Amino acid sequence: MSYAPFDWLDDEARRRADAGLVRSLRPRPAETELLDLASNDYLGLSRHPEVTAAAAEAVRTWGAGATGSRLVTGSTALHAELEQELADFCGFESALVFSSGYAANLAALTALTGRDSLIVSDAGNHASIVDGCRLSRAATAVVPHADPEAVRKALHSHGGRALAVTDSVFSVDGDAAPLAGLAEVCRGADAALLVDDAHGLGVLGRGGRGALEAAGLAGGEGVVATLTLSKSLGSQGGAVLGPDRVIRHLVNAARTFIFDTGLAPASAGAALGALRLLRREPERAARAGAVAVELYARLTEAGLTAVRPDAAVVSVRAPSAESAVRWAADCRTAGLAVGCFRPPSVPDGISRLRLTARADLTRKQISAAVGTVLATAPLPVS
Amino acid sequence: MSYAPFDWLDDEARRRADAGLVRSLRPRPAETELLDLASNDYLGLSRHPEVTAAAAEAVRTWGAGATGSRLVTGSTALHAELEQELADFCGFESALVFSSGYAANLAALTALTGRDSLIVSDAGNHASIVDGCRLSRAATAVVPHADPEAVRKALHSHGGRALAVTDSVFSVDGDAAPLAGLAEVCRGADAALLVDDAHGLGVLGRGGRGALEAAGLAGGEGVVATLTLSKSLGSQGGAVLGPDRVIRHLVNAARTFIFDTGLAPASAGAALGALRLLRREPERAARAGAVAVELYARLTEAGLTAVRPDAAVVSVRAPSAESAVRWAADCRTAGLAVGCFRPPSVPDGISRLRLTARADLTRKQISAAVGTVLATAPLPVS
Ligand SMILES: Cc1ncc(COP(=O)(O)O)c(C=O)c1O
Ligand SMILES: Cc1ncc(COP(=O)(O)O)c(C=O)c1O
Repeated sequence: MSYAPFDWLDDEARRRADAGLVRSLRPRPAETELLDLASNDYLGLSRHPEVTAAAAEAVRTWGAGATGSRLVTGSTALHAELEQELADFCGFESALVFSSGYAANLAALTALTGRDSLIVSDAGNHASIVDGCRLSRAATAVVPHADPEAVRKALHSHGGRALAVTDSVFSVDGDAAPLAGLAEVCRGADAALLVDDAHGLGVLGRGGRGALEAAGLAGGEGVVATLTLSKSLGSQGGAVLGPDRVIRHLVNAARTFIFDTGLAPASAGAALGALRLLRREPERAARAGAVAVELYARLTEAGLTAVRPDAAVVSVRAPSAESAVRWAADCRTAGLAVGCFRPPSVPDGISRLRLTARADLTRKQISAAVGTVLATAPLPVS
Repeated sequence: MSYAPFDWLDDEARRRADAGLVRSLRPRPAETELLDLASNDYLGLSRHPEVTAAAAEAVRTWGAGATGSRLVTGSTALHAELEQELADFCGFESALVFSSGYAANLAALTALTGRDSLIVSDAGNHASIVDGCRLSRAATAVVPHADPEAVRKALHSHGGRALAVTDSVFSVDGDAAPLAGLAEVCRGADAALLVDDAHGLGVLGRGGRGALEAAGLAGGEGVVATLTLSKSLGSQGGAVLGPDRVIRHLVNAARTFIFDTGLAPASAGAALGALRLLRREPERAARAGAVAVELYARLTEAGLTAVRPDAAVVSVRAPSAESAVRWAADCRTAGLAVGCFRPPSVPDGISRLRLTARADLTRKQISAAVGTVLATAPLPVS
């Protein structure tokens, strides 16, 4: 008998190829002429000398790895310092750092719900939230996008413990969640509100304190935030912020905290360096948002279809998956790196070009980016 | 109405306190007098100057973060180099690097199975494997620990696609999986074999090439390995190794790859530095195992109960959860850091002291560790 337990993967690969949906890796060089509007480095801090120096210093002081679970040898004074400053900055009682934002979402969703809980989840939520719902023992109700009334109805259909979860800024279209409305319906149903502020931290709120600070919800009794250190803070890692008892519970119950090696000191140090820089230069936050609005205005004035950005993500619709791929490739040929979202990464099946505004883009770079996107558009533009 | 959706956490906290199972964080300082037999830094590479220099150099060259998903801006030439060298070293066709070993396990289990698959999982498998099974759409059969015959029966009860999954070295007791037997029953049932070599890489196999190389299974048609970069390699991150078509499939289908920010350059650089060091100094691998066997021999000769270590983890039984906690605390007071495993982290409910052998422990340190464990033992020892 032939042993070939992976033959089915060839069929899958063929199906992907037929649908024009093959993804492959394209490692980038250290230095490039490409103008980057594809990364999530919203504040341009990933290569900031202060941030890289903080990472290098952390490696020298603490070593390359955390060497164990945070509960064994993996908690350093550096992790504690980062947690303290993140909580202070964003206006929460406590914070807990994870190896990724993905792990932080899995932790919050699994540890803050139980078998009798209901999770009410926005249809546009990030994959890590979807996976967290699936991994939890709770029932999940997926509700229409950005619809507090639908959340209210779902919450009121349930008797026991409940939690509503939403991205603060949706990664596909860059639109913001109706946080005030969601907080109100949660309060009315005694439900917790979990907000993934991956794309809000560093961009929204006073000096980049995030979407919850902007909405006046930071530090609220029933409010928990998840963050990633990998976007505005230019590093790697994630965090959960909330009341102290929530954080203490996660330390005891969250499997992606307990059974995972602690975040590498270099990444913790870099995130802390970026946070301190942002405190000193708070204008970076507003600048990222302003660049996004300018990109949006110039592209839609020329006839493209986009959602008005609430943070730093500008999402431009493409006629099809194939044209989106071609459009992104043509941009690249012309010196501009942009993202391309297509099925299955887009819940609604609509493919998009995804531009991310960076606070450090110059006027000339913004104009060049707009010019390239328009010149390569698969649609008539003016 | 009062709004207090997290009041139930106080009951949970009380329950934990009553059971003597409260966990809290104890951040460590950068320099300590404690002798470390608690970390997973098996080869003592986390602070090796070559490894930390490689991390610092990667930060300088590539920045503090990968800045996006590996499919967008998050793949650097450094990631590609690390993947190539990991695959070469361990004897597999291809490799794919993740932000953690946890994420690598979630990826392999979810993307390599489907709704009609059966996963057969050892009862002693790591939490990240358990979560991967739960997150997958497959049915899961949990079989008795280290029992190929039980795996065979479970596989033969199922008609469709199947995958057996095991730790190579179990994190609780440090015992090795019966890989040859498992590979044989998988071959007989046309099932894939997934082996988490988190504790085997760097310790088992020729020069630390891992448990699959040791068993002559590396690079096999139906064999996939997951690794972590956070133990022997002293860094952070994880990897999946396997046939090229498996890796290409993961790039297209694994949600913890597609929707997660790439591993930070510092961590990729450190892991690559550690791997190159291990290639040059292969004797480190065997040394870790030899230290473990010596610890085991001296502790059991004195009357303690332990499982003979197959790699670098030495697990010593404690009479109860409370005595294990006290034992570990007494060791710490006497200058020795050891791990302590207790419910719910131990599937069988038996609490343990967990010692990890490091390749760089001196004779004097080994004797000091043995002396301290014996002097603080809650049982009569000779
Ligand atoms: C909304 C959202 N949440 C969570 C994550 C995961 O964060 P990380 O990449 O740090 O794991 C991402 C992106 O990666 C995201 O866009
Ligand atoms: C057997 C095993 N698999 C996977 C992991 C997860 O790896 P990481 O900590 O790199 O996420 C661990 C430990 O943390 C482990 O012991």
